Amino acid sequence: MNISNPSADMTTKSTPFPLDMWYLGAFSSELKDKPLARTLLNQPVVIYRDLQGDVHALQDRCCHRQLPLSMGTIEEGGLRCGYHGLLFNGEGKCLEVPGQPKVPRKAKVPPYTVKEQDGLVWIWFGSEETSEPTTPPPHYEYHDHPDYVYGGDVYHYNAPYQLIHDNLLDLSHLGYVHLKTIGGDAHTHMNAKMEVEAEGQRVTIKRYMPDSTPPPTYTAAYPFAGKIDRWQDIEFCPSHIKIWTGGIDAGSGSVTDPDRKGFHMRGLHCITPETDETSHYFWTIATNPVTDIEAVKQKVVEQTRFTFDEDKQVIEAQYKTMRQFKGQPMIDIHVDAGANHARRIISTLCEE
Amino acid sequence: MNISNPSADMTTKSTPFPLDMWYLGAFSSELKDKPLARTLLNQPVVIYRDLQGDVHALQDRCCHRQLPLSMGTIEEGGLRCGYHGLLFNGEGKCLEVPGQPKVPRKAKVPPYTVKEQDGLVWIWFGSEETSEPTTPPPHYEYHDHPDYVYGGDVYHYNAPYQLIHDNLLDLSHLGYVHLKTIGGDAHTHMNAKMEVEAEGQRVTIKRYMPDSTPPPTYTAAYPFAGKIDRWQDIEFCPSHIKIWTGGIDAGSGSVTDPDRKGFHMRGLHCITPETDETSHYFWTIATNPVTDIEAVKQKVVEQTRFTFDEDKQVIEAQYKTMRQFKGQPMIDIHVDAGANHARRIISTLCEE
Amino acid sequence: MNISNPSADMTTKSTPFPLDMWYLGAFSSELKDKPLARTLLNQPVVIYRDLQGDVHALQDRCCHRQLPLSMGTIEEGGLRCGYHGLLFNGEGKCLEVPGQPKVPRKAKVPPYTVKEQDGLVWIWFGSEETSEPTTPPPHYEYHDHPDYVYGGDVYHYNAPYQLIHDNLLDLSHLGYVHLKTIGGDAHTHMNAKMEVEAEGQRVTIKRYMPDSTPPPTYTAAYPFAGKIDRWQDIEFCPSHIKIWTGGIDAGSGSVTDPDRKGFHMRGLHCITPETDETSHYFWTIATNPVTDIEAVKQKVVEQTRFTFDEDKQVIEAQYKTMRQFKGQPMIDIHVDAGANHARRIISTLCEE
Repeated sequence: MNISNPSADMTTKSTPFPLDMWYLGAFSSELKDKPLARTLLNQPVVIYRDLQGDVHALQDRCCHRQLPLSMGTIEEGGLRCGYHGLLFNGEGKCLEVPGQPKVPRKAKVPPYTVKEQDGLVWIWFGSEETSEPTTPPPHYEYHDHPDYVYGGDVYHYNAPYQLIHDNLLDLSHLGYVHLKTIGGDAHTHMNAKMEVEAEGQRVTIKRYMPDSTPPPTYTAAYPFAGKIDRWQDIEFCPSHIKIWTGGIDAGSGSVTDPDRKGFHMRGLHCITPETDETSHYFWTIATNPVTDIEAVKQKVVEQTRFTFDEDKQVIEAQYKTMRQFKGQPMIDIHVDAGANHARRIISTLCEE
Repeated sequence: MNISNPSADMTTKSTPFPLDMWYLGAFSSELKDKPLARTLLNQPVVIYRDLQGDVHALQDRCCHRQLPLSMGTIEEGGLRCGYHGLLFNGEGKCLEVPGQPKVPRKAKVPPYTVKEQDGLVWIWFGSEETSEPTTPPPHYEYHDHPDYVYGGDVYHYNAPYQLIHDNLLDLSHLGYVHLKTIGGDAHTHMNAKMEVEAEGQRVTIKRYMPDSTPPPTYTAAYPFAGKIDRWQDIEFCPSHIKIWTGGIDAGSGSVTDPDRKGFHMRGLHCITPETDETSHYFWTIATNPVTDIEAVKQKVVEQTRFTFDEDKQVIEAQYKTMRQFKGQPMIDIHVDAGANHARRIISTLCEE
Repeated sequence: MNISNPSADMTTKSTPFPLDMWYLGAFSSELKDKPLARTLLNQPVVIYRDLQGDVHALQDRCCHRQLPLSMGTIEEGGLRCGYHGLLFNGEGKCLEVPGQPKVPRKAKVPPYTVKEQDGLVWIWFGSEETSEPTTPPPHYEYHDHPDYVYGGDVYHYNAPYQLIHDNLLDLSHLGYVHLKTIGGDAHTHMNAKMEVEAEGQRVTIKRYMPDSTPPPTYTAAYPFAGKIDRWQDIEFCPSHIKIWTGGIDAGSGSVTDPDRKGFHMRGLHCITPETDETSHYFWTIATNPVTDIEAVKQKVVEQTRFTFDEDKQVIEAQYKTMRQFKGQPMIDIHVDAGANHARRIISTLCEE
């Protein structure tokens, strides 16, 4: 990608997706007693938890008459189609064709490699149908941490996944889009000291806003004395972004210390393309309340939800305009550095 | 069609429709004092009953400024356009252009040949615009039979017509899709003895399920003593399917005797393509209550409606998946024999 | 356009729009404290009133990351983008990029030339991006007249703009479409004496219906004694149509006298293409009540609204049919003379 003309990449061609990678397919909590239908990277997938508690993912299409298997039922042995009752195991092998003694050799459904950990269901999307994972899925420590509680949701976006990356990698928009929650003074955000580093498939962005007014979500959740020293640490990987933000009472300690105290909001953002033009945005927010744990958690999750609703409005409107003005040039400004690094990484991965 | 690879036929090309055939256009009961707009075989048609009680069908487009004639009014002489008042008779001839002494020679609208009988309005779709019917429309005896009462409806399907054929010609799905009404034990359905015969444009399928548990709709409508001997007789013609099902107390008589007693549900299923991808599904169900005639009829119609709602859900989901996986192969199983015969008949008719 | 085959023009190609012309973009009353988003001639435009009260229009797309500027806020100096805070003045010049000392040279948004008068916001659409207006926008006298009061609205149409012209230039449809309001006896309308004149970009149509029964809207608004002499004066210009209708007690004076008395409904109809297939229809209706001024105005506006709702139904249905029967011929009748003149004018302007 040419950094001075990102629009070429953003609008003029259908963006492919980097493959040979784990993408988030579902939250563990979504898998109860019914199969879940979800299109991921243009592929209709059925995800289900079997009676033993293991999670599986298959192509969401019965090989007989193409009913989505997600309309079927979870039974002993696997997933049974809701039309003529063919039964498939977690590897997509057909175990039974009701009323017929022999199962045809071709009766099978392509499976996906799945790994559930940290309350997250990761699915491997290989460049070849048969390709096996070459790495374990990413581990996330704040879904099971003694000092943290968390909540989250999955949002559907009528916009391609990279526009969500752009948004998350440039938090300067907080001062214009999120005044009511985590934003606050626009000037502070736009002038925050910013460090951007790119290495391999990773981009890190650190922003510091010393001696600033705590925004509404912060004061609602934490007993600050007055002004605060505030940080935003962003780490981009192609399938997910971690955003760790927070603040301490101004002058009370180092904001760059890994063990910094104060109020923390640790966000995990997994953006999985649904189609070329739509996305699934899985997010969780973990925080460290000192008192009223449940109430503070609820407030932080609720305010985060409100914030992300605002982003969704902006990003979907942005994409609508991009489609109308397809191919028109855009200009870059100082805050785009991190997002442009990320676009170059995705672009390189897609070319490989 | 190659029976081992039906998917080629089902997904990769726009299926044409057999022509030179009567298709059901409407129920008689739908034609009151307003014209009815209905697209049939990709053609917008207006169907109306004139003041003398005769039914006519015309292209649904005024030849002047293209308002649908179905927005007009039924008047003495014919149908008057609701925009500038041109009046057309049942043969599509313009009788009057208001405010203008002479009717232009070209002022006419293409008519369709219509025949109303048995409470059904059949329309001839010829391969040439001018082609005349070569046969009378099919007669149906159970809309006017001393022992039978009936009800029905017309459903709109977001799926091509042949998927509805497939569904009706393979009643093995009753055990998985219709457990709550006419289904019952899946094993019984999948293992029913089945006889399939194809001759000319006709396919007949007979299935028998001796000594089986009567399903919920049956017990609600008829005073069975216990287990029943059950039959399903299906007769496919390209424009309609008759499905005559029922049961008698187990061992109390022959289920193959044309005069068999017991509980009967006689279904008429007229499937008329709306477009390449959508369909009108007209159905009626006639039954022979011994007591509480009106109440039993209502129960049977209501349960049938519930059953067909389930089918609609399945078939529309199936078609959505077929479109997503366009051109992917499917496998056949034993129960597909009848449906595959029907597809071959339609395929041959379309090639002619 | 060939008058004997208008369908060629009406259906077979995307109609372009005449350029180098003022089109109505908004009513003054629509511009309050928020920017207004409106697509005009396929171009997304943001229209806003600045803090000094002046109206401006810009391309509705921030040059940075393409958020619609209509999602931004009106501030001192201009319009601020709601994503990263870029501030643009009424000429589209970027005045500020928050957090960055220098505004990039390319940071600007194309402006439109705007002129507000008579409660109307006119926008110049030139054939070149830089073209300047060569004429002032049309003046309309009945939005500020001592004897008249008016109301109006803007309707969105799923139909191209010329179908609305056709409708307004042929009021013979009143007898079939608008029986309940301004219509009345169909025969009277269809046989009204009609004078059509075309000169330059202007078409005038005059119709007189002497000694006719006043329609419901007329009798509700004015104390007629009995039968009336009725007139309809239509003046077509490519961007707007004036329709001045009314009546006097039969035989009480000249209906062609410019100073004729009686009941007047003076309609302004500004039809601005939204896209090739959709339109904005701005209308106002001014009337001259003798008593109960506010009540009569409300009645006239309400009845006009009801009338235009009827037209919208007809025209959108007409367009739907035209699309289905793309390219099929239509016939012309006597009442089409005015509309066909207008189509020839538009056609000539588009070719230039």
